[in-house]
Amino acid sequence: MKIVTLTSDFGVQSQGVGIMEAMIASISPHIKVIHLMHGLPSFDILAAARTLETVRYVPLGYHVCICDPGVGTSRKAIIIKVNRGDYLIGPDNGVLIPASRVLGGISSVYEITNENYMNLPVSPIFHGRDIFSPAAAHLANGVDLKSFGAKLKKNHLVESPYDEADRIAEVITAKVIHINKFGSVHLNILHKDWDNWGIKSAQTVVISLPNKKDITVIVCDTFGEVAFGENLILKDDYGRVEIAVNQGSFANRYSINIGSIIKLTLSN
Amino acid sequence: MKIVTLTSDFGVQSQGVGIMEAMIASISPHIKVIHLMHGLPSFDILAAARTLETVRYVPLGYHVCICDPGVGTSRKAIIIKVNRGDYLIGPDNGVLIPASRVLGGISSVYEITNENYMNLPVSPIFHGRDIFSPAAAHLANGVDLKSFGAKLKKNHLVESPYDEADRIAEVITAKVIHINKFGSVHLNILHKDWDNWGIKSAQTVVISLPNKKDITVIVCDTFGEVAFGENLILKDDYGRVEIAVNQGSFANRYSINIGSIIKLTLSN
Amino acid sequence: MKIVTLTSDFGVQSQGVGIMEAMIASISPHIKVIHLMHGLPSFDILAAARTLETVRYVPLGYHVCICDPGVGTSRKAIIIKVNRGDYLIGPDNGVLIPASRVLGGISSVYEITNENYMNLPVSPIFHGRDIFSPAAAHLANGVDLKSFGAKLKKNHLVESPYDEADRIAEVITAKVIHINKFGSVHLNILHKDWDNWGIKSAQTVVISLPNKKDITVIVCDTFGEVAFGENLILKDDYGRVEIAVNQGSFANRYSINIGSIIKLTLSN
Repeated sequence: MKIVTLTSDFGVQSQGVGIMEAMIASISPHIKVIHLMHGLPSFDILAAARTLETVRYVPLGYHVCICDPGVGTSRKAIIIKVNRGDYLIGPDNGVLIPASRVLGGISSVYEITNENYMNLPVSPIFHGRDIFSPAAAHLANGVDLKSFGAKLKKNHLVESPYDEADRIAEVITAKVIHINKFGSVHLNILHKDWDNWGIKSAQTVVISLPNKKDITVIVCDTFGEVAFGENLILKDDYGRVEIAVNQGSFANRYSINIGSIIKLTLSN
Repeated sequence: MKIVTLTSDFGVQSQGVGIMEAMIASISPHIKVIHLMHGLPSFDILAAARTLETVRYVPLGYHVCICDPGVGTSRKAIIIKVNRGDYLIGPDNGVLIPASRVLGGISSVYEITNENYMNLPVSPIFHGRDIFSPAAAHLANGVDLKSFGAKLKKNHLVESPYDEADRIAEVITAKVIHINKFGSVHLNILHKDWDNWGIKSAQTVVISLPNKKDITVIVCDTFGEVAFGENLILKDDYGRVEIAVNQGSFANRYSINIGSIIKLTLSN
Repeated sequence: MKIVTLTSDFGVQSQGVGIMEAMIASISPHIKVIHLMHGLPSFDILAAARTLETVRYVPLGYHVCICDPGVGTSRKAIIIKVNRGDYLIGPDNGVLIPASRVLGGISSVYEITNENYMNLPVSPIFHGRDIFSPAAAHLANGVDLKSFGAKLKKNHLVESPYDEADRIAEVITAKVIHINKFGSVHLNILHKDWDNWGIKSAQTVVISLPNKKDITVIVCDTFGEVAFGENLILKDDYGRVEIAVNQGSFANRYSINIGSIIKLTLSN
């Protein structure tokens, strides 16, 4: 079984999403298409990049990510092969980079320029349908990566929209990279950094939020360890750290947005 | 063809939903996954339970329901086999009980504790991915129900979040268990009770709403039997009774919420 | 591979959508169901009709469209065979007509009255589940179109909710037929009319909006040709013309609704 995942800032169950699935089916009828996420904040490359990271929880596959405000301009269309063996397909605007990191790093990168693997004529505003989805389907059919276009240098790619959180002494400076439907706020802190920093359940962390008073929260393993409506901080379900409310929305309570900077001060 | 349905309070077409589908595909590649409903009101067990009832309109299958504010605490993970032959998989928080009733009642219940049928390590906050979806896939692969863990007593399960509406003389006291996208308000009244109570098209019902004046509505078979914008009450499309507006939203007009109590007084 | 697409004004990933997919799977297990769009504006036949047009970008198939405020009344259930070879299945309320035009015109039309191809008993309020989805699945299984019911005359069908935009001298009077998630506003102007009228990139168009001052926009091929936040007009990705903002929402900026009339005045 071969899997293509689709991630986009298109509307959920919208025609753009359905037509990409149909395009893939017409090229590679037996491939399994999984909609990883749609409805991402419009034009928000950071949010899309963080979502694509979560393909680490999907079996090896062909992962298309469309958040592409530069569609039809000189920005490149690319395929990144990662060391886990997956292929990441999308625009060269940084959106694929965080996923490449959590999948073992970049093995090689190619530009997509070969019209044999496009849906012609290519719309200047819907490369998801006409370039990226067809590329995924042709790759799944066994077309060689080298056939799509020229090899690119890794260090010529547009940079990631975020880096890993920075710790200096007892202060971690983190960025909000995702807010889920429940209002939990996900930070650019990896589980392994959290563990390496020796942070453990039941200790407290002081959180400095934009334009709010500092709050003190407890490190937990799951929501139900604090009372209904209380704040907590914990490892999320996708490899990062999140701040949440037990059965409530942290993002609404403190007016947090994607891209916000949050400082965590560890207790002594 | 074997069918797994997924129902959750996760975001529609969000990564959690996509990753559960991928998890199932990796264990049981040929099973058909149908997304019954996602985007349910967060943490709302009543709303989720009522939605899962609608699997009665799906062929026999393996039905996973994730509305799980107690994830990672001492609440049990369970599989209910029902008399129609389906399996209901989810947390022991009452969310599976209404569906078990409309599927002929509970045949047997088992706890899920066998790690051989989990995705390890299990995240303490995403049992949908690591316990419930894998259980559905392994069941579909033919794993015996007894292999998952200990048999539980039916009467030890957490109770349903709602019971059937109560009629005393001419007054039915009902609860709102679902509000659909159109704003129609679905009550905990079964078609068969409605019929047994002798309620028929064209009669009127007085509806007492929370903090509103009583309204009188007509019993209909479909929306177009009243004028545009008029209220009506009718059998819904999933085995319950709904109050609606022809081409409008009853819930918005009268500020109705899930869980609201509504009294219906039958005419003499 | 046979494809059924589903389009509706039901909630995205709601039970209605999932149950239609399950119904199709139970009749025709190997057919591929693609959700073209759900969550369309409730009861908005114009919006649904325009969305169904986009099946021109889907391989030949069986296309079900459910926007059906007249469900259960005397309005007919119909199947339109189009000259491209597709089948359009839905209510006779005009919603199928625009798609039939872009798929080469109507070849023949039949009413669906044969209960052998319905899910019985038919709910008076959910023909999507009980009539339209089963019809698509049976057609895909090879049931002859003539078996569903009586042949209808094309000119007896309910008319389209919109016609093509009208040009008189230098003024095009257009209607808004779709607004996408990004807030781009799609008009009832075909690419081929746009081209035939000689409108070219880099020329300007004066746009008269409801209750707003006129604005002048530039004709482009893609969004990135204007500065961030600037207006533009361009061919959309589905065969029509759209007015947009580079990385913004034109509909929000100017309070545009589906059905609004917009006048475009071409420069001399």
